[in-house]
Amino acid sequence: MSIDAVLARLDADLPAATERLFELLRIPSISTDPAYAPDCRKAAEWLVADLKSMGVGAGLRETPGHPMVVGHVDGDGPHVLFYGHYDVQPVDPLELWDREPFDPELQDTEKGKVIRARGASDDKGQLMTFLEACRAYHAETGRMPCRITFFFEGEEESGSPSLVPFLEKNAEELRADVALICDTGLFDSRAPAIVTMLRGLLGEQITVKGPSKDLHSGMYGGPSRNPIRVLTKILGNLHDDQGRVTVPGFYDGVPELDPEMKAQWDALGFDHSAFLGDVGLSEPAGERDRTALEMIWSRPTGEINGIWGGYTGAGFKTVLPAEAHAKVSFRLVGDQDPHAIRESFRAWVQEQLPPDCTAEFHGHGNSQASVMATSHPAFEQARTALSEEWPEPAAYVGSGGSIPVAGHFKKILGTDAMLIGFAKDDDALHSPNEKYDLESFHRGARSWARILDAFDWS
Amino acid sequence: MSIDAVLARLDADLPAATERLFELLRIPSISTDPAYAPDCRKAAEWLVADLKSMGVGAGLRETPGHPMVVGHVDGDGPHVLFYGHYDVQPVDPLELWDREPFDPELQDTEKGKVIRARGASDDKGQLMTFLEACRAYHAETGRMPCRITFFFEGEEESGSPSLVPFLEKNAEELRADVALICDTGLFDSRAPAIVTMLRGLLGEQITVKGPSKDLHSGMYGGPSRNPIRVLTKILGNLHDDQGRVTVPGFYDGVPELDPEMKAQWDALGFDHSAFLGDVGLSEPAGERDRTALEMIWSRPTGEINGIWGGYTGAGFKTVLPAEAHAKVSFRLVGDQDPHAIRESFRAWVQEQLPPDCTAEFHGHGNSQASVMATSHPAFEQARTALSEEWPEPAAYVGSGGSIPVAGHFKKILGTDAMLIGFAKDDDALHSPNEKYDLESFHRGARSWARILDAFDWS
Repeated sequence: MSIDAVLARLDADLPAATERLFELLRIPSISTDPAYAPDCRKAAEWLVADLKSMGVGAGLRETPGHPMVVGHVDGDGPHVLFYGHYDVQPVDPLELWDREPFDPELQDTEKGKVIRARGASDDKGQLMTFLEACRAYHAETGRMPCRITFFFEGEEESGSPSLVPFLEKNAEELRADVALICDTGLFDSRAPAIVTMLRGLLGEQITVKGPSKDLHSGMYGGPSRNPIRVLTKILGNLHDDQGRVTVPGFYDGVPELDPEMKAQWDALGFDHSAFLGDVGLSEPAGERDRTALEMIWSRPTGEINGIWGGYTGAGFKTVLPAEAHAKVSFRLVGDQDPHAIRESFRAWVQEQLPPDCTAEFHGHGNSQASVMATSHPAFEQARTALSEEWPEPAAYVGSGGSIPVAGHFKKILGTDAMLIGFAKDDDALHSPNEKYDLESFHRGARSWARILDAFDWS
Repeated sequence: MSIDAVLARLDADLPAATERLFELLRIPSISTDPAYAPDCRKAAEWLVADLKSMGVGAGLRETPGHPMVVGHVDGDGPHVLFYGHYDVQPVDPLELWDREPFDPELQDTEKGKVIRARGASDDKGQLMTFLEACRAYHAETGRMPCRITFFFEGEEESGSPSLVPFLEKNAEELRADVALICDTGLFDSRAPAIVTMLRGLLGEQITVKGPSKDLHSGMYGGPSRNPIRVLTKILGNLHDDQGRVTVPGFYDGVPELDPEMKAQWDALGFDHSAFLGDVGLSEPAGERDRTALEMIWSRPTGEINGIWGGYTGAGFKTVLPAEAHAKVSFRLVGDQDPHAIRESFRAWVQEQLPPDCTAEFHGHGNSQASVMATSHPAFEQARTALSEEWPEPAAYVGSGGSIPVAGHFKKILGTDAMLIGFAKDDDALHSPNEKYDLESFHRGARSWARILDAFDWS
């Protein structure tokens, strides 16, 4: 069979496919707000019905939160696990939307046609690219291109509280040769991307305590400890003058970038000036001897994401506060161990405390970095298939952000993930007037058809 | 004439004196709240009437805010300017008061009788000690002990916006040989104090700006500037490892303490452990080679009184904020020049800014330190008189806080001030359940009678 017939069917079916996506977009499945729990269930049920319509054995799977959708279909060749999420972000501030967020519309813009609605890109539009590919393949051939497990979550935008327990409980059922995750973006409008490296994330909230109550700096200024001074002194030491994190052992497990990967990244022509210039910056901060792209995709960071203490209102109060606070996070790469770094960071803070001060810590999340085994044949097959669909060849890229599900698949199921998605930087994810380019939706479906058809690593 | 008759009259008149203070305390003269403007005026008028009742030519003097009260009375010998303020702090949180704040009551406590009401100590009770002394002297002798100018302000608790213009406009009228300010405390419950050194105060609010908008640390963490990191790095350098402020020129004009004064302070038996222990601290921070008392009374400081930036709510957001803020203040001593230090501090911050960051500054107040000319005979005469009234001898002390009026008297009128007051550490100034010990009120009046009688430096 030639893939051309499937692609032609996807072309012809685009208006109907768009209308199917609109149906799903009309369901306001905001997972973080309990008022929308029935809508989340409705979206899950819509997906079950859609899977069934193309011969997939699918059903709702209850969790303490919103239900999962799991479907299985047999096929020749490898077994892939496809992941997407059907829940969406809240829509406030509603007044910044140009139209009702759950009333999708196809709009003409200067940059082409776009589908405008909450969830159009993140992640309903992306998720549906895969279903449309399967549907066309099934309609054209009467079968699926390979064995597929469909797995849709409804809590991704609210911290995925049920995900790990569900994976642990259903590991046997969900384990596959490779996982496909459609929740990332193109490299640029002409070149698709396969994310092969995802940074991990470790958050710590610190409270430094000194005197037993707030003091007046006239009465006590001089001999009394000031927790803000203590905190700034400590956090001021978090980086050396080369921009490297000074916490002992922090760089244990940080690999040097593979030279082939580095060569490929250098060839991407990433516009560092434009990237920084867009946000009012002119030169990269951070580690002295790294490019911005390297820093974001393959280097760990330590950042202070929040700090507060003392009087922060209008005017002035000469207070010496009893405590001061900060939120610190680390982006992790390679084999950096979040638990070891958490312990080392806490000890590093403790060692710097002067007399009469104590520190309290509260951990916020910890996820290890994910580095995909690109040596698996699926990666090169997918890259070739993507390159055939898009004007420019597909790139292996890193992602500075953290997509914990990829790490969970690896750790719990033992399944490596390929992250392939068709979102654009200007899709306004999580923001008013979210959109998905019709080209992303259409070429995305065609891309999946090509990828699934190319998979052969038996 | 013997002072004994005046003191006996003060003893006999205590119940009536207390009732007079209660009348003044019943007027809710909260200066910061415009709703109480009529009450402020009423308190001022009450004082005018009280001054007139003892033969003082007194009147209201209008300002853009609450009126001043000025009174003059002739007498033999030196000319003293007496200052107090008739306005009080707000009373919220009202629910923490055991009774209505403006319904004064004489209460028995474990530590003796106290007058409980807002303003009982700060400053109506203190102010009335002086008026009661004058009243008794006048009643007993038909004259005042010396030439006195009475000067009462109604905006001390709201930043004294009218004070400097009023002093400048009426300098000729208010100038005196020495000023007496009754708005400070005893050294301890047995020993009175004359404050001879007051620290100055300089406030600066800093905003460090980096990227043009808040960034996501996954997308931008590494190559992007983080203003919180920049701010903590800079402020972490504010002190060296000896606890000294590192701003260039900061110690210009800081005098070494006069050996005689130091010997007297050392002899005070100040309980450093108890002072720090009361607020949960065990050892003095600050400059390594100074005692806590020296630090508070005679050494300058740099403190961070507030800091904020990024996400400070519950949970975690991996934001790199566009800006970060801090409020920094310096307590000044000797001849330190607040203007020069402000400029030097701003330059010091600017020099440490990395590329792509800017800093904005907003000044909050600046007052030079006041050091009284204790060589004037009034100081030793007052000290002797106080020592005769109280169980322990009076001490010359410093004050870590700033009482700007003393500096204004010196600068605008050319008049040195003696700060003598009878408040105690547990008076709960500015707090719920403010009180003034009846002993402070009674011995305070007796103290002033002795001081005024002792003044003779013609």
